[in-house]
Amino acid sequence: MVTQLEEQILQVKGFIFAAAAAGIKGSGEKTRNDCALIYSQQSAACAGVFTKNKVIAAPLLVTKPRMAAGQCQAILVNSGNANACTGQRGLDDARSSSQALAAQLSIAEDLVAVASTGVIGVPLPVERLLGVIPQLCAELDADKAGDVAAAIMTTDSFCKTARRVVTIAGQECNIVALAKGAGMIHPNMATMLGFVMTDAAISPELLQPWLTQAVDASFNSITVDGDTSTNDMVLLLANGAADNAVLSADSPDGAAFKAALEAVLLDVAKMIVRDGEGATKLVEIQLNGAIDDAQAKIAARSVATSNLVKTAFFGEDANWGRIIAAVGYSGVDVDPNQIDIFFDDVQVVSNGLTTGATQEELATKVLKHAEFCVRVDLKLGVGSAHYYTSDLTYDYVKINADYRT
Amino acid sequence: MVTQLEEQILQVKGFIFAAAAAGIKGSGEKTRNDCALIYSQQSAACAGVFTKNKVIAAPLLVTKPRMAAGQCQAILVNSGNANACTGQRGLDDARSSSQALAAQLSIAEDLVAVASTGVIGVPLPVERLLGVIPQLCAELDADKAGDVAAAIMTTDSFCKTARRVVTIAGQECNIVALAKGAGMIHPNMATMLGFVMTDAAISPELLQPWLTQAVDASFNSITVDGDTSTNDMVLLLANGAADNAVLSADSPDGAAFKAALEAVLLDVAKMIVRDGEGATKLVEIQLNGAIDDAQAKIAARSVATSNLVKTAFFGEDANWGRIIAAVGYSGVDVDPNQIDIFFDDVQVVSNGLTTGATQEELATKVLKHAEFCVRVDLKLGVGSAHYYTSDLTYDYVKINADYRT
Repeated sequence: MVTQLEEQILQVKGFIFAAAAAGIKGSGEKTRNDCALIYSQQSAACAGVFTKNKVIAAPLLVTKPRMAAGQCQAILVNSGNANACTGQRGLDDARSSSQALAAQLSIAEDLVAVASTGVIGVPLPVERLLGVIPQLCAELDADKAGDVAAAIMTTDSFCKTARRVVTIAGQECNIVALAKGAGMIHPNMATMLGFVMTDAAISPELLQPWLTQAVDASFNSITVDGDTSTNDMVLLLANGAADNAVLSADSPDGAAFKAALEAVLLDVAKMIVRDGEGATKLVEIQLNGAIDDAQAKIAARSVATSNLVKTAFFGEDANWGRIIAAVGYSGVDVDPNQIDIFFDDVQVVSNGLTTGATQEELATKVLKHAEFCVRVDLKLGVGSAHYYTSDLTYDYVKINADYRT
Repeated sequence: MVTQLEEQILQVKGFIFAAAAAGIKGSGEKTRNDCALIYSQQSAACAGVFTKNKVIAAPLLVTKPRMAAGQCQAILVNSGNANACTGQRGLDDARSSSQALAAQLSIAEDLVAVASTGVIGVPLPVERLLGVIPQLCAELDADKAGDVAAAIMTTDSFCKTARRVVTIAGQECNIVALAKGAGMIHPNMATMLGFVMTDAAISPELLQPWLTQAVDASFNSITVDGDTSTNDMVLLLANGAADNAVLSADSPDGAAFKAALEAVLLDVAKMIVRDGEGATKLVEIQLNGAIDDAQAKIAARSVATSNLVKTAFFGEDANWGRIIAAVGYSGVDVDPNQIDIFFDDVQVVSNGLTTGATQEELATKVLKHAEFCVRVDLKLGVGSAHYYTSDLTYDYVKINADYRT
């Protein structure tokens, strides 16, 4: 049984949280929280998914091999500075901060993950980060997951958190996801940090494939601007504090947990698109009838990333010509004379041809909504995929033309 | 010897031109020219490059197989309607207009190319096009190439024309290129029409490879918004009216002609970027030191199409972090610790690290120019490529949010 909670209570057994202002964002002035700590009271099994960008930020170079060993107990994260393209000094800064945290918490350094997000190419003011570590460790609390989500925001306009409860053989297990991201949002992956904590006990060999699949259907199926950052990571920690019977792959409970994990990640992934820089609309691209799922995803992504499609969404223009063109240049197998296109339930294209002005007028009404679905049916096979995208607006340009200045 | 002319005189021996208003653009009102005719007084050898979009507009379905036969004498083109996604009716319309033109000119229908650009999915008002054919044929004139370039404009804000003169064994040969395009500009290719006329005599088997190479270095090395249209084509007609000795592949004259052909195409291709929808800047991305030319082109394209890079250009922000990120996620081989980046001659990144605030300030001055070059050196090999792109601006969003409404 999976319960979606109306009110966001972000507790998950055995995990405690803290956030603090180190002045990394305010050039030394501690005006807002920019550092956070996630701590599991017992060492947790863990899995991770990391950026595919070949230019990889220092914290990922430090964290990735540690997570590959499968255990994690603490995550130290800062916003305001990505510690990317910072060379040997950046690596030293990532290591010294994780070392200081491990010492303060009296845990092995290999159990510490570090993460950063913010401006690229500027050295991390590491002494500020080091200075705030004692405060973070002192203020750890089960109620502060929301504070962590707030502290890791950069251009985000709201916190991204989600929780699901799965009941496994009478035992309540919690999954809490915290994420940040609003720009550079694109597989694989965006300036996007995602931290997922569960108190369920799960056999460690299942964690990584389950996380990979859930990320593929969520964080890797969203786009804001098509750019992939140097700093992305999603970490999943499972500390077993719920004392459930350890989950295995093919049990019904395993399936329920997996579904809840995918749901919680999709929740925060959709929040990222809704908060996409300058975005006013959240649009699902549903691509059906492709030769296979892989082709469906390529075509869905082509539509979802088209600047012309995204500006038409902003203009509330049911411009299916741009959609069909984006499907056509995606490179997947199509028969132009079989394509159907719908805006929600309003069909605007049947077998490659317009269904007429009345239908287009109805479709224009759909586009006035803040959320809607574009459904494309290629009618060639059973391959399907979905993608979430935003509209491309004046504010997107404004935010990204002004970001550093 | 290749001469670039200061003043645009667009004459090319044996080619005559006409433009007229058919009311395709003005919903019946003949407010501006929207149809044009290019006619060679003798049948010309021809080559063509066409969109790689799998959704292909009717005029391309008609024209492509005809051009494959290697001969063309007349090109009929309209703006205001793409005749794309118009099914059997669209094909009938493309055929009946080419048939009517052939009859009016007393030439074989197979020697007629038809081309369209404009809105997708709306039936072509073919009777208006048919109605203007007698006028077009009656008004053909050697001085009207510029009128053709003006008539085929859609969201273009200026005409795109270029000419080169090549002297071959004492004989002056002309190359004139007419193009249109401002949005949906991306390989392979954009809502982009290019018509290239030369009076040089060239052996037909050379025309296609020479055109393909020249298009690759020009039209296929520019981007405005990453979208590939259903209607793109570039046609090259060589009618031999200059009476030069027929050009062969490995002669110095052949090399001179090829260079002139590439130059004339690059001229109009750069005009398309400069006229990119909403663009205020023309930026060359020069990518050096890749493993090979193919990787260089992939990386250059990744930088040239990044919305984050393009908005930073608009914001006149020397944001090299976005450039290095775009190189990193392009998938090509890179060593992040070897990358150098320059804005014109100002180096901002050396071996993956910033060169400091003074250099960034100098770079910011470069970004204030209307045209500049971003040079990235991967220092891994001798592969190089260039790409031309524009900035992403408020006006791009405005133009494309409002295009149909």
